[in-house]
Amino acid sequence: MLQFALLAKSLLQLSSIRLHANHPSLSCFDAALCSWIVLHSLHHSYVRKAPAVCLASGGRLPPRCLWSGRCPGDFLEIFGNVVEKCPLITAAVWSARPFATLADMEARIAEFIDSLPAAGKAGILRCHPDLAGRDLQSGTLTAESEQEQVVAGLRSLEPADATRLRRLNLQYKERFGYPFVICAGLNDRAAILRQLAERFANEPQRELPLAIEEVKKICCLRLRRIVASDIKL
Amino acid sequence: MLQFALLAKSLLQLSSIRLHANHPSLSCFDAALCSWIVLHSLHHSYVRKAPAVCLASGGRLPPRCLWSGRCPGDFLEIFGNVVEKCPLITAAVWSARPFATLADMEARIAEFIDSLPAAGKAGILRCHPDLAGRDLQSGTLTAESEQEQVVAGLRSLEPADATRLRRLNLQYKERFGYPFVICAGLNDRAAILRQLAERFANEPQRELPLAIEEVKKICCLRLRRIVASDIKL
Repeated sequence: MLQFALLAKSLLQLSSIRLHANHPSLSCFDAALCSWIVLHSLHHSYVRKAPAVCLASGGRLPPRCLWSGRCPGDFLEIFGNVVEKCPLITAAVWSARPFATLADMEARIAEFIDSLPAAGKAGILRCHPDLAGRDLQSGTLTAESEQEQVVAGLRSLEPADATRLRRLNLQYKERFGYPFVICAGLNDRAAILRQLAERFANEPQRELPLAIEEVKKICCLRLRRIVASDIKL
Repeated sequence: MLQFALLAKSLLQLSSIRLHANHPSLSCFDAALCSWIVLHSLHHSYVRKAPAVCLASGGRLPPRCLWSGRCPGDFLEIFGNVVEKCPLITAAVWSARPFATLADMEARIAEFIDSLPAAGKAGILRCHPDLAGRDLQSGTLTAESEQEQVVAGLRSLEPADATRLRRLNLQYKERFGYPFVICAGLNDRAAILRQLAERFANEPQRELPLAIEEVKKICCLRLRRIVASDIKL
């Protein structure tokens, strides 16, 4: 295994991939994985994507993302929309870089959100679009939201379901002052409709933290998707 | 004056302009102004713009904006970028609506910004573009930023000034971890270059609140521009 690690190190150096100075040392297992993917990527002429390998070993962030962390602009370009239309949150947690693992970055984002007053949390929710709303119809959703809503089947609703969702959405917004937010990536349209009806009955003090937990779930999925797209060699 | 107020009230009703239920009662002076502008707007067939009139009487927000405040989506559409790329802030202060005056709305935004931890304040700054940076060159600034930078003369810098600004911007970002932010609407290019050089020498604890004060100035100008555009009859 040690030989594998040394081989990986040499290959990383050879292919001009320098790990970030603050990045935790590679374990032998990480290095073994690195070596495999570097070899694989060299073979397929995808050397530039090889740094992402570290994620493959248990959610550790790829060095590319750590490097990006050195410049807030690049960092924002990659992670700016992990919380819908709230680059402020990503930009705030940049102060806590580098992140040793993906879970570490997720935790910092969650901490920042939790530190906001109730109005700030409601503000995050208000930056979210309606589910199956006018933005989905007119194509003005963010790329992330559109993908999530389409995968959850919200573009192909039966007319009766579409009408029901629109009515419930409106009632929910009237009651709570923000749109209904649910992690569409973890729910299909039937579950979304059911939960919307259920959560509408909640007291506002109970509903706000529930909705914020959904924001965190969406954020985690978006983060994982960004990083996963980086390791497809 | 009382007659003028009654006339204004009747005209407002006639032209289907209903004041928001929570809007402070119109003073005689407000109503007199209202009546003049409603008459003026009727004359010019611009009835739909008449609600903006209240601003003319000392910074009171136009009812249109108060009405928009009833739906967070519309409110965000109008005021979402008064703090650069931070609709979260506008969305958070929606909780404090309706705003009796423009100064009231500005104060709520300032309060929310002040309530954020240092990382959140730095996050706001990181959502701002570089002055005379690549976004200005490539046309990818927000409309508000582009207008402010162009008016400050940053698109027509002498090559020597452009080089100096680029170098100073880079050094500033390296030192503080966020781009240099200054209210371009209140400074010309010479003042911007001078202040960038001066503020670069500040200690980080001194610089963060100074930069945040500039964010608030930018926000005030943007708010006033939005409202002013609503009263051009």
